[in-house]
Amino acid sequence: MKRLAVLTGGGDCPGLNAVIRAIVKSSVRLGMEVFGIRDGFHGAVEGDFIPLGINDVSGILPRGGTILGTTNRDNPFSYRSRSSADEVPADRSGDVLRNLEENKIDALLVIGGDGSLSIALEFSQLGFPVVGIPKTIDNDVMATDLTFGFQSAVNFAQDALDRLHTTAESHHRIMILEVMGRYAGWIALYAGTAGGADVILIPEIPYNMDSIVKAVQDRIHAGKRFSIVVAAEGAKPIGGEMTVDRILEGRPEPIRLGGIGARLSDDLEKLTGLETRSTVLGHLQRGGSPLANDRILATRYGVSAVRAAIDQRFEMMVALQGNQVTLVPLKEAVNRLKLVPADDEVLLAARSVGICMGD
Amino acid sequence: MKRLAVLTGGGDCPGLNAVIRAIVKSSVRLGMEVFGIRDGFHGAVEGDFIPLGINDVSGILPRGGTILGTTNRDNPFSYRSRSSADEVPADRSGDVLRNLEENKIDALLVIGGDGSLSIALEFSQLGFPVVGIPKTIDNDVMATDLTFGFQSAVNFAQDALDRLHTTAESHHRIMILEVMGRYAGWIALYAGTAGGADVILIPEIPYNMDSIVKAVQDRIHAGKRFSIVVAAEGAKPIGGEMTVDRILEGRPEPIRLGGIGARLSDDLEKLTGLETRSTVLGHLQRGGSPLANDRILATRYGVSAVRAAIDQRFEMMVALQGNQVTLVPLKEAVNRLKLVPADDEVLLAARSVGICMGD
Amino acid sequence: MKRLAVLTGGGDCPGLNAVIRAIVKSSVRLGMEVFGIRDGFHGAVEGDFIPLGINDVSGILPRGGTILGTTNRDNPFSYRSRSSADEVPADRSGDVLRNLEENKIDALLVIGGDGSLSIALEFSQLGFPVVGIPKTIDNDVMATDLTFGFQSAVNFAQDALDRLHTTAESHHRIMILEVMGRYAGWIALYAGTAGGADVILIPEIPYNMDSIVKAVQDRIHAGKRFSIVVAAEGAKPIGGEMTVDRILEGRPEPIRLGGIGARLSDDLEKLTGLETRSTVLGHLQRGGSPLANDRILATRYGVSAVRAAIDQRFEMMVALQGNQVTLVPLKEAVNRLKLVPADDEVLLAARSVGICMGD
Amino acid sequence: MKRLAVLTGGGDCPGLNAVIRAIVKSSVRLGMEVFGIRDGFHGAVEGDFIPLGINDVSGILPRGGTILGTTNRDNPFSYRSRSSADEVPADRSGDVLRNLEENKIDALLVIGGDGSLSIALEFSQLGFPVVGIPKTIDNDVMATDLTFGFQSAVNFAQDALDRLHTTAESHHRIMILEVMGRYAGWIALYAGTAGGADVILIPEIPYNMDSIVKAVQDRIHAGKRFSIVVAAEGAKPIGGEMTVDRILEGRPEPIRLGGIGARLSDDLEKLTGLETRSTVLGHLQRGGSPLANDRILATRYGVSAVRAAIDQRFEMMVALQGNQVTLVPLKEAVNRLKLVPADDEVLLAARSVGICMGD
Repeated sequence: MKRLAVLTGGGDCPGLNAVIRAIVKSSVRLGMEVFGIRDGFHGAVEGDFIPLGINDVSGILPRGGTILGTTNRDNPFSYRSRSSADEVPADRSGDVLRNLEENKIDALLVIGGDGSLSIALEFSQLGFPVVGIPKTIDNDVMATDLTFGFQSAVNFAQDALDRLHTTAESHHRIMILEVMGRYAGWIALYAGTAGGADVILIPEIPYNMDSIVKAVQDRIHAGKRFSIVVAAEGAKPIGGEMTVDRILEGRPEPIRLGGIGARLSDDLEKLTGLETRSTVLGHLQRGGSPLANDRILATRYGVSAVRAAIDQRFEMMVALQGNQVTLVPLKEAVNRLKLVPADDEVLLAARSVGICMGD
Repeated sequence: MKRLAVLTGGGDCPGLNAVIRAIVKSSVRLGMEVFGIRDGFHGAVEGDFIPLGINDVSGILPRGGTILGTTNRDNPFSYRSRSSADEVPADRSGDVLRNLEENKIDALLVIGGDGSLSIALEFSQLGFPVVGIPKTIDNDVMATDLTFGFQSAVNFAQDALDRLHTTAESHHRIMILEVMGRYAGWIALYAGTAGGADVILIPEIPYNMDSIVKAVQDRIHAGKRFSIVVAAEGAKPIGGEMTVDRILEGRPEPIRLGGIGARLSDDLEKLTGLETRSTVLGHLQRGGSPLANDRILATRYGVSAVRAAIDQRFEMMVALQGNQVTLVPLKEAVNRLKLVPADDEVLLAARSVGICMGD
Repeated sequence: MKRLAVLTGGGDCPGLNAVIRAIVKSSVRLGMEVFGIRDGFHGAVEGDFIPLGINDVSGILPRGGTILGTTNRDNPFSYRSRSSADEVPADRSGDVLRNLEENKIDALLVIGGDGSLSIALEFSQLGFPVVGIPKTIDNDVMATDLTFGFQSAVNFAQDALDRLHTTAESHHRIMILEVMGRYAGWIALYAGTAGGADVILIPEIPYNMDSIVKAVQDRIHAGKRFSIVVAAEGAKPIGGEMTVDRILEGRPEPIRLGGIGARLSDDLEKLTGLETRSTVLGHLQRGGSPLANDRILATRYGVSAVRAAIDQRFEMMVALQGNQVTLVPLKEAVNRLKLVPADDEVLLAARSVGICMGD
Repeated sequence: MKRLAVLTGGGDCPGLNAVIRAIVKSSVRLGMEVFGIRDGFHGAVEGDFIPLGINDVSGILPRGGTILGTTNRDNPFSYRSRSSADEVPADRSGDVLRNLEENKIDALLVIGGDGSLSIALEFSQLGFPVVGIPKTIDNDVMATDLTFGFQSAVNFAQDALDRLHTTAESHHRIMILEVMGRYAGWIALYAGTAGGADVILIPEIPYNMDSIVKAVQDRIHAGKRFSIVVAAEGAKPIGGEMTVDRILEGRPEPIRLGGIGARLSDDLEKLTGLETRSTVLGHLQRGGSPLANDRILATRYGVSAVRAAIDQRFEMMVALQGNQVTLVPLKEAVNRLKLVPADDEVLLAARSVGICMGD
């Protein structure tokens, strides 16, 4: 194992730079070289490889984003070049393999979410040595207990709730915060529990508007003329839910950002008589400096991925299980979503302190 | 001067509690009593007065919101009670005066924006001793250089820009941040200058889409495939602008929150070919713990308003001019907006470091 | 199980209020009452019990400190009243039991560190039903993987390192940060790894000054004329270390706060020729609003402790093991310290990215 | 005016990079070139000049520190080279002038505190065109109302006070925070007022221990068994004060960092019977990302300094007076300290809300 390549794919996530830094620092200490591939699989197709030395990763640990660039639209197996937008997609996986070979890459480390890791698996099945590193701000990658970036997003959402709280209380309003989570409600559940939400709505639990209204009214009767609602962007009323099967088969239409919060706001104002305002956290959740925990997990992932490459443990993904970083087969992780189970301990704790989960 | 009353009116703003605390602490030291009126002029009509002692203001300095509650819809001169929503508005100013008298209030301190201060002026003209304390997160109250809360909002918007920056750079995107500022662009100008924005759009300078596109393209040519745009919610294209006269006469329809960012996003993506995403900061700008500067200014305002009451300087508003807190006639402050002038020093500095102001 | 009592003992720690809130909220929902005992075991001796209702815990989730007050010097089995300072310590455990009985307390929940939990164990052995909730900012309580407050402290220390970094780089200095950790180096290890430290010194690994100097000099040769050192307050040079046995037997003299950083600073400046400055984080690590993770863990602990009381699982302590909150016998937790083991994964990752651990 | 040089001298301060960026960006727009001189006057003597283009200042706005490096020990008029430590200091001002000439520098912009600006004045008097930009975290430079970095330091100190508050309250302690301010108490006064301190001690007002003890005891009698004290590092008891004359003439010994807080702590614990703890903020005040206000002021200073150079307004310093950036003669600014006057409005407001100023 002499030379590794690394790329970052999919949406921005706090901790990407920490992974890249750990890969470079630990590889160089072991006498290996690292190349970065720019803009995810786009650079893999186009041959945009750059050597990464210690100086290139100096000072990047606290920074959000990725020094390598990323995209969430390039798949080498169905690739459109950017110069001609109407071109028919082509299989350019051969170019990727040739570029890896020309740059004398012995193993490819892919930091990405479900999409990028699926592509990584395909290259592995074509015979190129690959190690995956899970990245999703939503924490919904299967086979790992935790992904870096998630806790930073939760904390930012919690801070937003702390901010909305005083305004809600001063104005006697319902304040709704819409957070990320198209299919899985981890951010909403964790941020809502930490931020003292009164109602938390997640995709896994279709909501009943009557329950929400009752929760708000119970608070009014107890003298609290304000309520805080956290809604995952994929939260759905009973009857309107997506099934995971539909999600996984159909690659459904992206849910329009801002939808659920605005809709809930109109309904709740009418049904409760309280002024109601909605805020969409949006892209702010993906930026910013990672929390300590995310920097540490990202560092452990980077170090472990290099170790896996040295040990020839390919077609695997690094994963956190309990307190240990371990390796799991890539194919157990991709094309599956880790949803909030009904007996999740944080969910049960949220219910125990009286948070309405919409059901 | 034996007993003061204080109320907070209009939208939430960091520093309200710091003003209330300063009023109570400085009054009690001088042997006076303070009553709080709850929920702004609603409580003034309904007689919702509570005594405020040192213990009531203990620990509130760092907290957002207002312990007194606030509303932005109650005008005693045109009042609807909440129990009967379809009631014709009535002049209930007599109730307010009677409640003030029954509670033996010698002077009323009104912390509020243009709306609340206009009402305060009317009561003053009816003969009740009033001192105003300007409050607007937008910093657009005339006759004062600065209002508390503004800097906290600017700083939060700047932090949001820092967050968007790394994502914009990693994804080679245009990121748009829509901030408060319906008529005046102070938050956008200050946050954009501090946050390294490439384009800042404010209501005072109608924008030319060609200029914005050119700014983005100039950056692409210089190797920077991302741009940051800050838009005040009231920013308008050339030809679409509101005039201040129309604003002041007509009390125009509220601009739909989220409008400008989303519209710009669609247009810029088409015109530049760069992925473009928009974020609306919304209510988050009003919450949270005030910055040091806002706490200090709020404290100075509170102390000075009490001093003004003792000195019988009524129908006045406390104001910051240069480095000094002074008093200005209430009628010079209300019904006028402080807009960003063309020769504002921060605006000129923004232009000097190459920020496109849309013109 | 009709009435619970709760007290907080030992040093301040972010998340105490979140535990109290979860205990009250979950108990009230189950039809039970909760009493708070003020100032830890001091209030238990003196009979300072107050009922805690939903309103008493409203709004306390984001706040540092404890609404119940705490002390770290009162032991009912060897108690000195405060009125007469030179009094001989007396066994006042009988007063505690009588106060618990008079207030009709069915079970006592003790939130505390090693000291408070040891006292809790003694009361349990006297026959009073007790459940323990571990609290230590140092994360050194045995039998639990994690304690609330630790991550908030780590994050604050990391932010401090981010601050020191730019100054170190601008001035070409060595900057030393001394953090908590008298016997266990968890905060130093985690904050240092997350904050990009070049050297981390923990009590578990006696340091060799030559190694530290070499690490600094290697950086100078690589063009980096600055270094960041994190030292746990209990870090010791080789030959000067405390053994755990001595710690546990002898209850050694408290280490003088500020000692190690200042000493290292003098030595490193002389040995490397670089300007060296030291900062002691001190009490700042204990304050502030808890991070989301700590609020969630604290909430889970509170809910689980109430559940344990209902299930009559006494003389137990709630603990996190992997991802699950469970119960462990109190006597397995107390009088033992959880030190950083030589094969700790974060420690190994720190070494892999080139951090000098002083050995 | 074709080519400017810029250097940063003295202690680190948030906003230095923002000034450098504004100088480069505004100069380049006007067709000029900028050179950076590394490590303050050290690089001026040694000829360490580097060209600064737009790309060199990209992304530095939010960062603490200075990309140019700085020192606070090099004076070209009395210079020791680092290679031979025991060398007799020599006048190397000729080397500086020759280096400026060789690099074809038309004007030198010096960003620094009293020391660096004094040196700048000497070069100006030797005939080299110089513009000064005041930098001091302490806000004690004469002839300007405000210096960048000061507000960031105040805000960090305020956050520290917020943290100490909950611990003080939970433990019924006196918590002392020692902040920067050797000769002027601006940081202590502002942070203490904003952070709700009970006692603020500044060098300008020698303190009477009896007054402090009385303030603490008055609080105990009012039911508040905790107090917060902020002390500038240069605070002195009555009889122990430094006079400004002695300061300016004698260049007194640096005050040992950590001194006043520790001394006060011992005394207050004895005199009040309350547990007392002290924390020294130290170098943390100088680091971190600048607040919006500091970034904006720094940007205005940078732009205005370039403008001054173009306008041939040499031997001047940019300064903020009221709301306007203006130019003042360098010699009016140096060798003088701006102390807190007895009638400072913030000081009076602090007294009005009951803060004990030690007198």
